[in-house]
Formats: sequence, C-alpha cells, structure tokens
Amino acid sequence: MDSLERYRVNPKKFSLKQFKADDKSARTGDKLEDAKLLASLAQAINARQDILHAQARHKVLLILQGMDTSGKDGTIKQVFSACDPLGIRLACFKAPSDEELAHDYLWRVHQQAPKKGELVIFNRSHYEDVLIVKVHGWIDDPECARRYRQINDFERMLAENGTIIIKCFLHISPAEQKERLQERLSDPTKVWKFNPKDLEERKLWPAYATAYENALQATSTEVAPWYVIPADSKTNRNLLVSQILLKTLEAMPLEYPVRPKEWEGLKIED
Amino acid sequence: MDSLERYRVNPKKFSLKQFKADDKSARTGDKLEDAKLLASLAQAINARQDILHAQARHKVLLILQGMDTSGKDGTIKQVFSACDPLGIRLACFKAPSDEELAHDYLWRVHQQAPKKGELVIFNRSHYEDVLIVKVHGWIDDPECARRYRQINDFERMLAENGTIIIKCFLHISPAEQKERLQERLSDPTKVWKFNPKDLEERKLWPAYATAYENALQATSTEVAPWYVIPADSKTNRNLLVSQILLKTLEAMPLEYPVRPKEWEGLKIED
Repeated sequence: MDSLERYRVNPKKFSLKQFKADDKSARTGDKLEDAKLLASLAQAINARQDILHAQARHKVLLILQGMDTSGKDGTIKQVFSACDPLGIRLACFKAPSDEELAHDYLWRVHQQAPKKGELVIFNRSHYEDVLIVKVHGWIDDPECARRYRQINDFERMLAENGTIIIKCFLHISPAEQKERLQERLSDPTKVWKFNPKDLEERKLWPAYATAYENALQATSTEVAPWYVIPADSKTNRNLLVSQILLKTLEAMPLEYPVRPKEWEGLKIED
Repeated sequence: MDSLERYRVNPKKFSLKQFKADDKSARTGDKLEDAKLLASLAQAINARQDILHAQARHKVLLILQGMDTSGKDGTIKQVFSACDPLGIRLACFKAPSDEELAHDYLWRVHQQAPKKGELVIFNRSHYEDVLIVKVHGWIDDPECARRYRQINDFERMLAENGTIIIKCFLHISPAEQKERLQERLSDPTKVWKFNPKDLEERKLWPAYATAYENALQATSTEVAPWYVIPADSKTNRNLLVSQILLKTLEAMPLEYPVRPKEWEGLKIED
C-alpha cells in the first residue's frame, strides 16, 4: 500500500495543483470489484477498531476537511459502515456558539479529542479557524501563522500523549461542486442540506484553494500528516480514506488483552 | 405489529414472571428468514432516522437496561447496523466519576439527552441509580420511591419538550448468563469484557430481579413505557428491539423539509 504515500502532503514541496480532483486511480476499473473492495475494507477497519476498543490503550483521530459538498458525510457513512457504534465517535464542528467563541479556538476541539480505546472522527475541525476565518479576513497573516504553529504544537501534544492522527482533505473541483449543489436542490431527500450561504462561499473558491494550500503545507507533520484525497469520484475517495485509515490501524500494536493466569480454569457457578 | 404491546409493562398488573427469558416467539422459525428480516428492519430504521436527522425537529431516546451479559452492546450493533454514524449518538453510563457523584444522579444523564434531530441510545442509564444502588443498600426504600417519582418527572419533562422515549429491559435467565460469562472467559476476543466483579453481582440475582421488577412497574408510563425483551435468544432480542423502535419511528410525523418556493429553478453558477 505504499502507493498511498503519493497522496501525502510533503511540506517541503507542495502545491494543490500536483493533485487532480478527478483522479480515479484508486478504483479497480470494475464497479462490482470496487464495491467488494470497499466492503472488505470496511470489515477490516471494524476488526481493527474492535481490538482498539477492547485494548483501551491507544487513541485514533481522523480529521476530515473539504469544501462544501466534498463528501465528508458520505465518506464517514461508507468508511465506517461495518463499524460498531460502540467503538467510534463523531464530532461535528459547526459555526461556534457564543460560549465557544468566548474561549480560544482549540478549546471546543480539545474536549472532543479521543480517549483510550476511541476512534474519533472530526467532521470539520480547528482547521476552519485558519480557513473560513482567513478567507473572510477575520484574522491577518501573522495571526494565521501563529495559529499554524499553535495547531502543530497542539497536535504534537496529542500525539505525544498517545493519539494517532490522520488528516484527509477531500479535494473536489468547482465543476463537481456545481453538480452536487444542483443535485441537492432537485432531490427532495437532499434539499435540507442546501444552504444559500454555500453559494456565497463558492464565489470565494480561489481564496479557499489558497487557504487550504497554505494550511496543508504548514501543518502536514510527521505525527499528523495531511493526505489530499481526489474526491470528484466518491468511490475513489472512499477507497483512499479507507485504505489510509486501515494502513494506519494495521501499523498500530493492537492486541486483545490477554486472560490473566488466575482466571484459567475458572468455572461460573450456577 | 400490535403483538408488540404484549411486551409492554402495564404498571397496573406486572410481574417479571409473566415474561419468559427464553421466549423466542418473535423469530420466524427459519434462520435465513430471521437474518433477512433483521436486515430489512435495520434498513427501515436507517431510512426513518435519515428523515429525523434531516428534519431536525424531533428527538428520540432509546434506553437499554439489563443484567451483565444481557446483550446491550450486541443489540446496539445489530439494530443500528445500517445507520449512518451521523444520525445516532451513543451514551454509555459506567460507574460515576467523583465529579458526577458530587452532583445529583440525573445531572450527567441530562447532559446526554438528545437534541433536535438526534436518536440517542443510552447503554445503561439513570436506572442504575434505582438498581445497583438499591440492591447494595446504598439507598433505602423511601429514597428509592422518591427517585422513581423524580425519574418519572424528569422523563415527562423530556417528553413534553419533544423527546420520544422507549425503554427496553433485556431479560435473560441466570442459566444464559452463566453460559455467556463462561464464553467470555474462553474466547480470546471477549476476555476483555470479563470482570470478576460480575460474579459478585451474579450472586445477587434475586435481589436484582426484585429491583428491576419494582423499577419497571414504578416507571413504565404513557410517555416513557418499558418493554420486557426476552433476550436468551439474541435473534429474538434483536428482532423485538428493532420492531419496537421502528414502530415508534413510523408513528412519528417525520418529513423531509420541503424546498422553499424561492429556490425553485435556482441554477448554480460556474
């Protein structure tokens, strides 16, 4: 699976242009094969997550970022489709509340960090505080640079305290977003996801692309790497996120706890 | 599905003896048919939960209680196997922390109550505070009676504020528990679930049965009914909880939000 490395952001030389949003090379070329592969990846992720939960020693944090309609919800649904609700936890970060705004921007995020045995998924994250906030000019360049450093410090602290961190940027093209927004409008089961404000944000696409490029480069570290996931194809996206997560889980020293000696031969009484 | 009513606790005449833990009458008699039925129930629950989430108006709370090994975890895994992690949330109540103990017993529970659009599952709950606490004599009869009233008041308040509440007691026999505890000891993937303290609790079985009987009778109300789920058969258990939950979701006025007039004909620009 070393081919996954090419999706990893190398902070020494990175440009978003290196990555094509419509790349589909993770797909097998056969729809049925792709579906089988996705199902087996989901099963394998569940198997590792079960041990993670049973062992209650390690912590895993998966951060998902991407433009509106990039498929954060859909990715979560597929990648964790075989997982026990007991072993995963989802934290969605929307516009901060007044109370959250009265604290530093990492305050609400820290509260949602995984504990031992947990796999936590961040649907958006503290990265919004160097993205939307930067694009709209609510922070200036020096403050943004300070936040990159603060985020790296924060994530290093989490890592040093036993958290494995994976960050995926779901990379779509403006043309794909157009189609997906239009689909939300025409599908009665998706209209609720449509927000006219998304159209305003869409106009800021180039500024967002720059903000993402800068943020990914500044915060892709050894302990908390960013991956750029070509996401115009939902299947390509789901395969890659599943494979990166599974590879990470497989590299961890996960083991079911061993039965203590004194329990051997123990018979339960009537 | 009116046959489900016979599992409902009627506070006017109730004895746990009316219910056989090894009752399997929810099963079809054919394993393959049972599996198909469970899968279709899971899909139907997911479909309703998707609307619940999209509409973001109603709240659902499913409370699961039962002796050790009664299958609370397994029930959650099966009943919600087709559900999107985005739409459900799980709250597990273990032994309270020092901080939680410094508050009233409903404090930590209230924090986990569902918000609009959420389906929350309580794996154990505030009922432990009239069960384990009563069995061990940490509260006396008058205090226990006060708590029944407080719990009914609390649940009525939740219901009056838009929460649909379903409570399921997973009913197993001591013989079935014996087998399951023994299995935990011998299966390397389940040893982590074994806790020698469970053997001490097992000795208190008759006291627990009485505590459950009293609690269920005292707190099965119109707005928050208890169901006794015969749970020696995992399939019987999963079928019943799925059916009761689905029936509840189907009785709710769930609708996808309608597209506002002003969005008609809206074209997304390039």
